[in-house]
Order: sequence, then C-alpha cells, then structure tokens
Amino acid sequence: MRYEEAGVHIAQKAEALKRAKAQVEATYTPEVLRGLGAFGGLFDSMALKGMRHPVLVATTDGVGTKTLLALEVGDVSGLGFDLVNHSVNDLLAQGARPLFFLDYLAASRLEEEVLAGLLASLAQACKALGIPLLGGETAEMPGVYREGAWDLAGTMVGVVEREGILGPERVREGDLLLALPSSGPHTNGYSLIRKVVAGHDLLAFVPELGESLKEALLRPHRAYWPEFLRLQENGVEIHAIAHITGGGIWENLPRALPEGLGAEIQRGTWPVPPIFPYLQRLGQIPEEEMFRVFNMGLGLILVLPEAEARRAQELVEGFLVGRVVPEPGIRLL
Amino acid sequence: MRYEEAGVHIAQKAEALKRAKAQVEATYTPEVLRGLGAFGGLFDSMALKGMRHPVLVATTDGVGTKTLLALEVGDVSGLGFDLVNHSVNDLLAQGARPLFFLDYLAASRLEEEVLAGLLASLAQACKALGIPLLGGETAEMPGVYREGAWDLAGTMVGVVEREGILGPERVREGDLLLALPSSGPHTNGYSLIRKVVAGHDLLAFVPELGESLKEALLRPHRAYWPEFLRLQENGVEIHAIAHITGGGIWENLPRALPEGLGAEIQRGTWPVPPIFPYLQRLGQIPEEEMFRVFNMGLGLILVLPEAEARRAQELVEGFLVGRVVPEPGIRLL
Repeated sequence: MRYEEAGVHIAQKAEALKRAKAQVEATYTPEVLRGLGAFGGLFDSMALKGMRHPVLVATTDGVGTKTLLALEVGDVSGLGFDLVNHSVNDLLAQGARPLFFLDYLAASRLEEEVLAGLLASLAQACKALGIPLLGGETAEMPGVYREGAWDLAGTMVGVVEREGILGPERVREGDLLLALPSSGPHTNGYSLIRKVVAGHDLLAFVPELGESLKEALLRPHRAYWPEFLRLQENGVEIHAIAHITGGGIWENLPRALPEGLGAEIQRGTWPVPPIFPYLQRLGQIPEEEMFRVFNMGLGLILVLPEAEARRAQELVEGFLVGRVVPEPGIRLL
Repeated sequence: MRYEEAGVHIAQKAEALKRAKAQVEATYTPEVLRGLGAFGGLFDSMALKGMRHPVLVATTDGVGTKTLLALEVGDVSGLGFDLVNHSVNDLLAQGARPLFFLDYLAASRLEEEVLAGLLASLAQACKALGIPLLGGETAEMPGVYREGAWDLAGTMVGVVEREGILGPERVREGDLLLALPSSGPHTNGYSLIRKVVAGHDLLAFVPELGESLKEALLRPHRAYWPEFLRLQENGVEIHAIAHITGGGIWENLPRALPEGLGAEIQRGTWPVPPIFPYLQRLGQIPEEEMFRVFNMGLGLILVLPEAEARRAQELVEGFLVGRVVPEPGIRLL
C-alpha cells in the first residue's frame, strides 16, 4: 500500500504551491527573513524596539461555510479577502496595526485549481494591506471533509502601543455609536443563507437586489483598515470598536462596552443592504433572529465621544446609530 | 427559519467554552492583557525591547487525520499535545522560544463533550510549555465536515534573536546528524495508518508492540523543547534543526541543509519504534514509502559540529545517525 492509495496527493499540492509561489512572495516586505518552505516564517521585529510599550495582538478566524457557496458557483477569488479582511478588523478593533498573516487550508482533496485560486486570493488580500503572507499549512484530509468541501482559516498578528489599546475601559456614558456600513453578510450566517437560497439560481439577476445572489452573497468581507487609518492619522479619539460578526450586535457590541453601561441603537438610522430583507422574507426569518445572525449593515461600530463622532463623519462614510447609556444591555429601538 | 434549523448550535458551543474557561485562563502568563472574549488576544511584548534584534517566528499546523483515530476510540485527550508540541518543534527548529498559541477547532457539529475535551487538552499542552492559549476560533460547519469529524489546527508565535537563528547558512561539511527519538508516528501518515489498521481491534494488546494499537498510535507528538533548552543552556552550538514531519527525512532534512551539501544517514544507528515495522508488514508498504511518509523514529535531527554532537549526547538521549557530505541530496545507507 502507498500513501496515494490512502487518498493523499502530494504531487498536486506541490504543483499548486509552485504556481502560487510568486504571488505569495510578492507579499513579502523587507521584514520577511524566511517564508515559504521554512519550518516557520521569520519576521524581523526590530521596529518593535522603537515602540514605547509594544503589545502583540493575535486573532484566528475562519470564513465558515461561505466557502461552500463560492465553490458551488466556481469562484473562490474573494475568499482570501474575506479571511484577511475579517482578521484585520479584529485587530483594529483593539487599535492595532497588522504585521503578518498565516493561512490554514484544508480539504478532502486538494484540487490544484481551487488551491491555486485560494492562495492567489489570500496573497492579493495580504498585498492590499501591505502585509506578508508569512506562512501557512495546507492539508488534505480524506475522511474529515466532505467530498469537494474546503475550509479556510488563518491567523493575523499585529501590534499596538500599550497606551493606544482601545476597549471598554475608555468608554463613557453618552459616547456615540458610529457605524461603518457592511458590504453584505460578510462571513457570517452562511449556513442559514445556504438553506434559504437552496434551489435558487445564484447567477440570475434579482431586481430587488440590483444584482445576482452570487454577487450579493460572495462580495468579500469589507476591511475597515483604510477608514481606521484615516481617523487615526487625523487624531480622532476612538474609545472602543466592535467588529460585528457571528452573533450580530447582541454578541459583539457588548465586547466594546464596560460593565454597568449599555447601548441604545435606533433603527432606521443606517442603510440596511437589500440582501437582508430579501433573505428575511425568503426564509421567513424572525426580525430578532436576523439581528442575532447577521450584521444587518452594521459592519463595524466605533464608540467615541460626541464631538469626535461628528469629526469622524467628515472623514469616513459612517452613520450615527445610537449611544452609550447608563442601563446595561443592548436595546434596539 | 432559525439558525438552529440550519444546523448551528450556538448554546452548546457556549457551554463547552464555559467549561473550559478556567483551564484556558490557567495558561495565562502576566503578559496576557486580554484573552478569551476579546476580538484578538493581547500579549505584552515589553520583553522584546530588551532583545538585541528580535525576530518573530510563526507557524501554523494541523494534526491531520489523527483526530479520526482519536474520535474512534473516544479519547481526544492527547490531540492538544499533538498540535502544540508539533508547533513548538517547528519554532525551535529555527532557534526560537514560544510566546503564545492560538487554536482553530472546527466540526460538523460541536458536541459539547468533545469540544470541552479538546480545549482542555490544548490548555494542558500550553501549560506544559509555560505559554498562554491566547485565543482561537471554534466553528461549526455542517456541510463542510463529515458527520462526527473534527479538525484541529493552530498557530504558534515565538521569538528569536536575529544572531541566534538556526538554519542552512550555518551548516558545514562534516557536521554530524544527531537524531532525537520520536514517540511513534507523531502526527504524520494517519490517512495511511487508518487504512492499514482498518478492521483491527485498536484496544487489544499487541505483543509485537508491547501495547495496544490505541496506545502506540495515539501517543502524542513529542515536544523537544526540554532537550533544546538543556542544550542551549549548556552552550552547545547547534547549526540547524530539521523537524521530521510529513514527507519524512526526504522532505524535511533538506530544509536544514544549504545548497550544494547533502547528508548520509546510516540505517541501524537508531531504534525504530516497533509500530513502524508492524505497519509496514500489515500494509505491505514498500521500505522507501515508509521513509517518505513516516519519521521512522527520527523525531528531530540536529545538525552540529562533531565535537558539539559528542557533548550533546551527554546531555540528551540522541543517536548519531549520519553526517553532512559534499554531494547534494539525502542518501540512506
């Protein structure tokens, strides 16, 4: 018996990695001392010595079952952006800037085309942020994954000055909530979405959406890095940031609020992307469940003093959706 | 329709995380400023400022299909050690010490018992190395994973002084290869192993092995961190290290050698754990395939000057298995 007979195809994997090599290496910054092929990626961190008090920030995420939808329509080109952008938002929610990224790719069978496409997408997404794709792991696991299914996860490491860490400790009663719009469901709720749109033609134009389901549902998770950078460079004082992912505002906004304080969010103050009412109607999903599963158009919520919120609105596209109140809990008005 | 109907069970996941919370938090060192529940883990890196030239090292790995064997016999307690120990070996192969770890856990259905068991195992493995389990992601993906299957991957970040980075550049002709023994197949070749032992009673005592297949096959990936530390503390000069994982010596030893040099390995100079000849006979696996898939008892190979190799042998259990030669390529004699 040989390894190939057990369903592991070493050659195809090597071929796809060879194809993606140039794109991965194009993400390398001068800090990368060792990348592809090393037992671990090496990232020169001399710059951290110049910081007053460096704090590393690390986050691991996956894109969930959005991969299945992408594979169904044969277009994985956005999935790398989904993953990398999701990750950078988790970092900036703490005030941090990204340093590097590592991916984890696994499937029942490593088809060369799909693997090369995913690696290219990851490399492009890293390149767009100016950070290296420092390493990763690609695993073929017959018996773990369903036929044709893939999983895509990754880890981003960043850094922040200790005194610049954002978070609940900074938040005060009366702070405003400034929401930056999402581009759609981002990477959350896709198990429900797939159930709702099952049997529908994903490529057909849907007038209500102004585009096809494929376009509305595969649009990548938006990165708020450019907006965050602009606010920071203009000295806008941000207290805390909530990245609205799985669990919606109910699970994510509280992570940006201190014990004892809550928030009120006023419906109708921000544009809800048409994909959400469309999914709600099609799937007969209760309103409160919609807010529990989806971001509903609230991609990122900045918590900041009133005067800073007004300034921020002149710098980025954002909507004042509510405020911090003395009663704990989130209330949707 | 609700999220639960799409096969996603938010409550069970929350319950398992609650059960594992204390064990995860027990891994925290004073450097952990934010862990569980944050958008990203925060790790105070003031210590890096005291280094001459800090270089971060990061590696992502998975345990592969060893999970399926563990689930089959209902014992996932070693899988966290498999993952964490694999990762620390990849770091020390470059001379680095670990700082923190993040995990990625995914399954078709997050059964509370299994999830709590895996998190406990990960926490214990991190605790054993003295590093925090700084964060992670746990995802339920019906449609991606096979019924009852799990995947377990993770990322370790460490640091090394630039002048202390090990690697091919340091290796010289005549250097010796000192192998530290493996504890078995570690985390490689399990798709083949599962095919070979299919239908066998994994719990039955096997005289040839001196233990059951369960014991021989689920023994965790060995961490060479204590040995590495002892050698380092005693000032043993190591040139390069190869961690022998997927692809065996053929794929991994070259990663520790410079262009233009090769290595000779002399069979019979190290003890081959009995599980390997057992699997070879049972699966009628060609000898060269055995060396291509398994570590064959060579868990970690240190490349170091002859005099240092002799000193190292007095400090750790290791076997001189070969040497660096002027002809490129690996030769098994």
